[in-house]
Amino acid sequence: MAGNSFGDVFKITTFGESHGEAVGVIVDGVTPGIDIDEQYIQVQMDRRKPGQSSVTSPRKEYDVIQILSGIFEGRTTGTPLFIMLHNKDMRPEAYDDIKSAFRPGHADFTYLQKYGIRDHRGSGRASGRETAGRVAAGAVARKLLDNRGVSVVAYTTEIGGIKCTTLDESTIEKNAVRACDPNAAAAMIEKIEHLASIGDSVGGIVECRIRGVSPGLGEPVFDKLDAELAKAMLSIGAIKGIEFGAGFAASEMLGSEHNDQMGNHGFLSNHAGGIVGGISTGEEIVFRVVVKPTSSISVPQKTMDTTGNERVIVTKGRHDPCICPRIVPVVEAMACIVLEDQYKRQAAMHG
Amino acid sequence: MAGNSFGDVFKITTFGESHGEAVGVIVDGVTPGIDIDEQYIQVQMDRRKPGQSSVTSPRKEYDVIQILSGIFEGRTTGTPLFIMLHNKDMRPEAYDDIKSAFRPGHADFTYLQKYGIRDHRGSGRASGRETAGRVAAGAVARKLLDNRGVSVVAYTTEIGGIKCTTLDESTIEKNAVRACDPNAAAAMIEKIEHLASIGDSVGGIVECRIRGVSPGLGEPVFDKLDAELAKAMLSIGAIKGIEFGAGFAASEMLGSEHNDQMGNHGFLSNHAGGIVGGISTGEEIVFRVVVKPTSSISVPQKTMDTTGNERVIVTKGRHDPCICPRIVPVVEAMACIVLEDQYKRQAAMHG
Amino acid sequence: MAGNSFGDVFKITTFGESHGEAVGVIVDGVTPGIDIDEQYIQVQMDRRKPGQSSVTSPRKEYDVIQILSGIFEGRTTGTPLFIMLHNKDMRPEAYDDIKSAFRPGHADFTYLQKYGIRDHRGSGRASGRETAGRVAAGAVARKLLDNRGVSVVAYTTEIGGIKCTTLDESTIEKNAVRACDPNAAAAMIEKIEHLASIGDSVGGIVECRIRGVSPGLGEPVFDKLDAELAKAMLSIGAIKGIEFGAGFAASEMLGSEHNDQMGNHGFLSNHAGGIVGGISTGEEIVFRVVVKPTSSISVPQKTMDTTGNERVIVTKGRHDPCICPRIVPVVEAMACIVLEDQYKRQAAMHG
Amino acid sequence: MAGNSFGDVFKITTFGESHGEAVGVIVDGVTPGIDIDEQYIQVQMDRRKPGQSSVTSPRKEYDVIQILSGIFEGRTTGTPLFIMLHNKDMRPEAYDDIKSAFRPGHADFTYLQKYGIRDHRGSGRASGRETAGRVAAGAVARKLLDNRGVSVVAYTTEIGGIKCTTLDESTIEKNAVRACDPNAAAAMIEKIEHLASIGDSVGGIVECRIRGVSPGLGEPVFDKLDAELAKAMLSIGAIKGIEFGAGFAASEMLGSEHNDQMGNHGFLSNHAGGIVGGISTGEEIVFRVVVKPTSSISVPQKTMDTTGNERVIVTKGRHDPCICPRIVPVVEAMACIVLEDQYKRQAAMHG
Repeated sequence: MAGNSFGDVFKITTFGESHGEAVGVIVDGVTPGIDIDEQYIQVQMDRRKPGQSSVTSPRKEYDVIQILSGIFEGRTTGTPLFIMLHNKDMRPEAYDDIKSAFRPGHADFTYLQKYGIRDHRGSGRASGRETAGRVAAGAVARKLLDNRGVSVVAYTTEIGGIKCTTLDESTIEKNAVRACDPNAAAAMIEKIEHLASIGDSVGGIVECRIRGVSPGLGEPVFDKLDAELAKAMLSIGAIKGIEFGAGFAASEMLGSEHNDQMGNHGFLSNHAGGIVGGISTGEEIVFRVVVKPTSSISVPQKTMDTTGNERVIVTKGRHDPCICPRIVPVVEAMACIVLEDQYKRQAAMHG
Repeated sequence: MAGNSFGDVFKITTFGESHGEAVGVIVDGVTPGIDIDEQYIQVQMDRRKPGQSSVTSPRKEYDVIQILSGIFEGRTTGTPLFIMLHNKDMRPEAYDDIKSAFRPGHADFTYLQKYGIRDHRGSGRASGRETAGRVAAGAVARKLLDNRGVSVVAYTTEIGGIKCTTLDESTIEKNAVRACDPNAAAAMIEKIEHLASIGDSVGGIVECRIRGVSPGLGEPVFDKLDAELAKAMLSIGAIKGIEFGAGFAASEMLGSEHNDQMGNHGFLSNHAGGIVGGISTGEEIVFRVVVKPTSSISVPQKTMDTTGNERVIVTKGRHDPCICPRIVPVVEAMACIVLEDQYKRQAAMHG
Repeated sequence: MAGNSFGDVFKITTFGESHGEAVGVIVDGVTPGIDIDEQYIQVQMDRRKPGQSSVTSPRKEYDVIQILSGIFEGRTTGTPLFIMLHNKDMRPEAYDDIKSAFRPGHADFTYLQKYGIRDHRGSGRASGRETAGRVAAGAVARKLLDNRGVSVVAYTTEIGGIKCTTLDESTIEKNAVRACDPNAAAAMIEKIEHLASIGDSVGGIVECRIRGVSPGLGEPVFDKLDAELAKAMLSIGAIKGIEFGAGFAASEMLGSEHNDQMGNHGFLSNHAGGIVGGISTGEEIVFRVVVKPTSSISVPQKTMDTTGNERVIVTKGRHDPCICPRIVPVVEAMACIVLEDQYKRQAAMHG
Repeated sequence: MAGNSFGDVFKITTFGESHGEAVGVIVDGVTPGIDIDEQYIQVQMDRRKPGQSSVTSPRKEYDVIQILSGIFEGRTTGTPLFIMLHNKDMRPEAYDDIKSAFRPGHADFTYLQKYGIRDHRGSGRASGRETAGRVAAGAVARKLLDNRGVSVVAYTTEIGGIKCTTLDESTIEKNAVRACDPNAAAAMIEKIEHLASIGDSVGGIVECRIRGVSPGLGEPVFDKLDAELAKAMLSIGAIKGIEFGAGFAASEMLGSEHNDQMGNHGFLSNHAGGIVGGISTGEEIVFRVVVKPTSSISVPQKTMDTTGNERVIVTKGRHDPCICPRIVPVVEAMACIVLEDQYKRQAAMHG
């Protein structure tokens, strides 16, 4: 109800503010008897953490996880996994001058309107720091999906109008923007570094591909596989849209073009993006999300203060000029959580 | 869990197959003491029903609703509203020749994979007929939102590459495609009629605007207002993508362009589409969805039969060459349900 | 949230008032491909219906069910089963004189306080009529449990101080009070007939035994198998308490007496009633519920009218002097629903 | 689904094993802007902790709580409260000899059957230690109920056949068994000390009274106020039954006795225990729960080892010979959580 949980069977609940004591997650509904070690999860955490490269924030969040319950002798027990990260690099004083003003593009104004109270240090629950718990939980889901033969990969395809023209997955983890085209990556990095130097930021597009999903996964009607993925993705702060398969281009297509015909070896195309009627076809699941430019910029902007007066604000602090590379592991994590949950829901129906 | 319910407080559960006895909806969590008559709901049903014009299916679904519980002397009692529609114009024999083959673009294949059993008459739960219950429930939500001063309007902005260039809301219900530009509407209708004559179909884009929402509505983290709207929209069969505010165009924008600055009279722009951090800003909420071309076409297509052999199929029956005009009231209905549910969730938190 | 749904995976949602048009249930999460015919369900409906004998209400509710969705060629499709019963023997005029007064022991007062509006005809959602949908859904669950080798039987053990001293299950369906002891049954019937003749009613105790449940069923912590059964039972209007195994007698026992020791063939006793730590032991699950005397009596009683004045009321209408025999199938139905749901939840965890 | 969460709006999720690193709770759906300090919660924790007196376990669990999120400058922010307790007095070696055998009355056997894996140190999630998180969350709910004018008090009324004959609430926190009758308390303590000396344990009954609840609280049908309380209570490990108002005695009552008649100043009796039709009447809510004798005793008992062989077991460790006094604050906590959740659900319906 209050929106801090996600999933029906494989269910996560996150807590924690960016500048509080700790952030973390309870993962409930984990299959018992599975080998999981902290290192497996830490690998994913390290892909999300700030300070990875010249294009990410130099903040040193302390992203070392602790698993405090749900594991016995290296294996899951079926009881809730509790995973916590202490906040170590808190500099709330960096936020003192924005105590009484709303940063444009941030949730400062909307949170105050909703709750009538605001923790002005950082962005509270609206901070990207909240996604640390998601990535930890997503790593657990990924481990379970590994056992099912399902893989999930996301990558940047576009930043500030620079588009990837090849899909070379081997390059993704080798460039600072996690793009699937090394040449485009170089141009993207150059653009971001320039924008960072003038205190501005830029948006982009991240694509996700899910392979190995058997046909028949997903619920009909309201909990369609694409509906659940859409909710999961739009629940990530910076994401403002999603499209599956042919996506928005379908608006210009004819039925005779868009329909995926079948031969005796299966589908002849995949405009549906691997999901028809909310249920997987067995083809690759493909979707794209649009990532807005980071709200925190040091360009002077007009805003209102908490007493209703107009003023100019310059957001200090250490921020990402483009959040795409750090959103990639979050997109993957949420996709893993949706899929594992759907597999367990499928088991429930037939069970 | 099984995906036939939507909403947390204002909660709907639909049932029924396109070619079964009846379809309908239970609406739970309705405010007690509200005047609701069947006619108010019927108006919305008539916007969704087939056979409205030359661009919609000539099927005569019997969309006359009955309210069988939850109303006493014209007012809601707070107990579940049960609204039913009998199926009257069933012609299952029209589907006999597709008993053993999968229609391209339809959920025939995926449903059989999921359930191991398939009602081959029509599309079962995957049929657009299922949305009748949504529209009925949406009308109830709309009534409650009327009392809050919130309005929801959707309309077609693009079909087959023909784009609206004005936003004239007075024209929407006056043209057969529910477009917001009368000139574009005329071109769209001509295109659709041509495609219908050759048995093909076409996709489009529908936009929705929600006005009067006070700032502070929506839950943080996983149940963000945009995340809930995204799930609601992607749960509509033909919809393959959604974007809020600037949407996919944000990928090419700088932070200094995309951020909505504030003056002392409020926001100076609305690139966010009325939602920041998952919570309403008080500005108009704006989103667009892409509608795929109708799957049912009479152009011959390659498919597989249930024994795995390739064959050619021609989908008979009476279908919509472009579903945009009939999706408009469904988009509005789902938006109304999300909003009313969020208002009640907000009341719960402070209650 | 609004309380008209029960179950997580095997999930039922009921609707309908006693004196409205219809009552019924949507059963979601049903295993696909199961043979279910209306007659199988009707058998259970007939055990619940009024007018079965001299000790039940002579009202002729029309308990003939219709299945309007979710079945194709006699088998479940995995989509929602919708089961409806029209109300046929409505005599709302019998309730006219209680329009302005609260019947003692009834929910008239509390419903008006909660909703601010009251359908004074009969008892609305608080009527026993609401349980018709539960019994229909319970029959579906029972069918699924049959396939698992699980059986559920309930029976009256005590009415008005008259206690059964044998457990002869073959007699249950042969006597009008569904008691497990034919001699006690005769005395119970005599007592009830006397009370009916003077317009009074009486309470009793119903016991339920569940056999064939494998060890390991049930969730830990909040959704313990006994916690779910307790909620299910207390959700039945007339039930005011529940105890498992040794039950309230455990308050006088020592640990060395109450603990169920084990030999190499299993447990040596069953004081736990088949559930330890919220999870089944594999022994018979045994619980008892107390059923209050029917509230509707024709003995004059003091009450308040809706304007706050004291008056005397005599409840007219046709009522059950003891509801135990008709609660037996409702207890079984709810137990079946809880168990089938738990089996599906178990499958989800391991799935 | 996996059973570690409770509540719809005011929602708690607990984690942690008795012999793991930590236990705790996430409390979601807390009203924003409420003053809450750790000391207010700690008072309740201290009522639950072991080692309070001669009749409780001498284990020194470290019940000092930390609030790690959801509070800013002493007030709730509306975001999840995270409350944690480190486990400090772990002596897993005390459990080594039961690694391969099932303790009678414990969940060792059922957990292994359910999960196929068992953390043999202590009782894992089935440990009473899990209730620490409940009591912390219950203190938050109690704070919110204070503001509503609702109070919740529980106390022991019976232990091992010794019954309280007065209801003196001033004595409850002054005697080691939290009984409501000082004379009975003395006899109970003597009995428990004797049983402790011979390594045995004993059961009892705890009663709970809730005052200040306005009429009209609770949902109809499945989520009746008594049904939710029953689930909450039966979710406490040692509780095996519950009864409301007249309870099991209603089986011997006539309708003319049990019905609570009304005068113009309200109800003339309270056999219903303050709840009719699942909704509060405005009278005191009264229920009783039966507490089984503690399973951990040092009397030799027959059991089975994990290879299926019979053996004799003596449970070592430091255990409570009667758990009633320490269950009292857990009963209160769960009652507070149910009530606060129902108030918020009520607000949602009208909101």
